[in-house]
Amino acid sequence: MLPCVILVEPQMAENVGMAARAMMNCGLEELRLVNPRENHLSDKAIAASSNAEEILYNAKIFSSTSDAIADLNWVAATTARHRDQTKTVMNADEAAKQISTLITDNNKCGIMFGPERTGLRNEDVCLADVIINVPLNPKHCSLNLSQAVLLVGYEFYKTQISIKPAHLETNHTIPAQKEKILLFCNYLEDKLEDCGNFKIGEKREKMIINLRNIFTRGQMTEQELNTLYGVVNHLLRK
Amino acid sequence: MLPCVILVEPQMAENVGMAARAMMNCGLEELRLVNPRENHLSDKAIAASSNAEEILYNAKIFSSTSDAIADLNWVAATTARHRDQTKTVMNADEAAKQISTLITDNNKCGIMFGPERTGLRNEDVCLADVIINVPLNPKHCSLNLSQAVLLVGYEFYKTQISIKPAHLETNHTIPAQKEKILLFCNYLEDKLEDCGNFKIGEKREKMIINLRNIFTRGQMTEQELNTLYGVVNHLLRK
Repeated sequence: MLPCVILVEPQMAENVGMAARAMMNCGLEELRLVNPRENHLSDKAIAASSNAEEILYNAKIFSSTSDAIADLNWVAATTARHRDQTKTVMNADEAAKQISTLITDNNKCGIMFGPERTGLRNEDVCLADVIINVPLNPKHCSLNLSQAVLLVGYEFYKTQISIKPAHLETNHTIPAQKEKILLFCNYLEDKLEDCGNFKIGEKREKMIINLRNIFTRGQMTEQELNTLYGVVNHLLRK
Repeated sequence: MLPCVILVEPQMAENVGMAARAMMNCGLEELRLVNPRENHLSDKAIAASSNAEEILYNAKIFSSTSDAIADLNWVAATTARHRDQTKTVMNADEAAKQISTLITDNNKCGIMFGPERTGLRNEDVCLADVIINVPLNPKHCSLNLSQAVLLVGYEFYKTQISIKPAHLETNHTIPAQKEKILLFCNYLEDKLEDCGNFKIGEKREKMIINLRNIFTRGQMTEQELNTLYGVVNHLLRK
């Protein structure tokens, strides 16, 4: 059960559309609107949603925040301002992890965002289980509504997928076996020797170490080794 | 030395302005533009930058990507599309951590973003040390340029600050000492007893356990305990 996004009194239909787009980016589907000022199905809103108009068409409208959260088990309030309320404040990634845990226990969760200009009212914040604070430059933390939805949604999305860690993308080729890299290094060293000008003694040792480091550090692929053979042979033609 | 943001051939001045705003949100300062199509100092761009016009005024313009990265030691290319290139692909948070490490070693880093419609050209991607992939819904991963800047910038900003973990914000009061919570529980139980209707035997034990769990789970503050005493006393007036 994915968490829903609750926009409390959003002012501009365009922002609602962009929020829908951000939701779609993050795999979120359910949008609830509390007293939107403008029509969330206006041409402007649909255009701003990019291809996320389905979220707008399915959005539910409520006349109060308490109605909008009535069926939920857990609610977070996003706010950039400090509130004089006794409430757990968590970062977006912590909230995302908590939601991720809660939904596996079949809890229905929601994330509230306030009106563009003022943010959530204190009466709305006190209905939430926690406050979400997105860590941003304190001197300039005003975010567009859709960007706030995007950042919180992004943190949630990261908890829902298995993310492939940093890796060398090799496509149709594979990282070369060490033997092949050394064969190339030997080939290059032999050719340098043939040219007569290769360094001697200690300098030669050092140069060989350097070359082997260059060709080892970059995790060469088989295809790239072939390219390098071609380069050496082409240079030798002269 | 903060990483710079390089927008390669951005099409709309408004997007450049919004990217500047996103940079400011994330504590980034240096913007480089490669052949922007529109004037990045137009009224539209300045308005879209919110209060980040300083970044626009200080932006440097280059006529080629290679010129724009000439003085950098490490460059990342953001791209949503798969590229047929042998290159390390990392997530935004991994790239942020790598940049964070690199800059402490005095490396000057840059993050490249391509034109709105097409993204970076392959000729630009191959100039980068790594590809950054922002994990998003693969069925709908098209991001506004400024949102791409925001997500990558946000991940970088998180590496630069010490983030206070989830905590109960108590403002001017403090979490009550256990003794005070138990005193209140005892008070409530006594008053319930006085009213004559309190459960008996096993049920009484169970109710006391339940009440103590309620008042323990929420980490009451001293002020809240006072509020609760007031509530009980007010109810007793009847």
